[in-house]
Amino acid sequence: MTHYPQSILKLIKHVARLPGIGEKTAERLSMHMLHAPRREVEQLAAAMLEMRNSVRLCCRCFGLSDDECCHICASAQRIDGILCVVEQPADMVAIEKSGAFKGRYHILQGVLSPIDGIGPDNLRIKELGQRIQTEQIAEIILATGTSVEGEATADYLAKRFKPLGLCISRIASGVPMGGDLKYVDQVTLKRAIDTRHRFT
Amino acid sequence: MTHYPQSILKLIKHVARLPGIGEKTAERLSMHMLHAPRREVEQLAAAMLEMRNSVRLCCRCFGLSDDECCHICASAQRIDGILCVVEQPADMVAIEKSGAFKGRYHILQGVLSPIDGIGPDNLRIKELGQRIQTEQIAEIILATGTSVEGEATADYLAKRFKPLGLCISRIASGVPMGGDLKYVDQVTLKRAIDTRHRFT
Repeated sequence: MTHYPQSILKLIKHVARLPGIGEKTAERLSMHMLHAPRREVEQLAAAMLEMRNSVRLCCRCFGLSDDECCHICASAQRIDGILCVVEQPADMVAIEKSGAFKGRYHILQGVLSPIDGIGPDNLRIKELGQRIQTEQIAEIILATGTSVEGEATADYLAKRFKPLGLCISRIASGVPMGGDLKYVDQVTLKRAIDTRHRFT
Repeated sequence: MTHYPQSILKLIKHVARLPGIGEKTAERLSMHMLHAPRREVEQLAAAMLEMRNSVRLCCRCFGLSDDECCHICASAQRIDGILCVVEQPADMVAIEKSGAFKGRYHILQGVLSPIDGIGPDNLRIKELGQRIQTEQIAEIILATGTSVEGEATADYLAKRFKPLGLCISRIASGVPMGGDLKYVDQVTLKRAIDTRHRFT
């Protein structure tokens, strides 16, 4: 590896710091950048810097945005009064892709995790409470993950906002669609049976 | 995917143009760049641009170099009079890693490929001829690949430089070390048997 010129070695080192990129792939990508049209490399570098400079958190939902307010919060097409509460912006993107939700979002920016020192004050929970009141929210869908922390965070939010008298729901968990029961883990199967619902 | 801010979508698009990086990986890498320390992202962008600006071809061997002359051509430690002829800089790096060669290199910058319109004048063959004479080369090792084009290029070079009266050798091809014969392709097996050598 030390047989490349210094500037290539340096690039390989920086590329290899990206997650999931090993030294071999970093070498391959660096060689691609060497042989690709100069404009392509310049555009990639510029896009990286521009993204870092322009992305900020939406002032309402704390999702990612290029502007003060994200396009979902700014949209008049979304249903008011219902909030989907997620951990991270990527979760919001996943739900948007499913097309299953037409309300607005609230991004917590994490989950409760005492072991990492993350308590309610480290998440956007106070702001969620404010939105529930100022935006006259009738329902919040708790769509945190189904990890131990995600479940605990959902439980915490449910207890905390119950006194406000709004409808609080939790996304269903169980056997994934198209899933073969014999490959599904026991915890998921237990949940699927515990939360079974009647055929209507 | 359209649910990210514009600047992130743009970055994902540019990252996804890299070879072997699909849209999912591009999304993951872009999100990493969003959350990574700003300095890390700036260093990566700078390394990309710096590499493009500083890498050029060595004036002697046509390998990659940050300087007029690459570190191998400039080194007094290498054995003079023997050249290893390869297709691309990456081939040189692979041979250097093996530690099997202590002479100097000549990088052709490709292989003969009539179908792509690449003839002898498009490669650094004339320059190889000049080096053979000015550097008093006693042996050239033809280390082009074992593809059809690589083989044809080696044959061409052997014929072309034979009249100069130097030793011309070709790297061995056959069953890779640690290889299980039943997984080796037929062409390789045929070559391994055709070029078998006596136990000494």
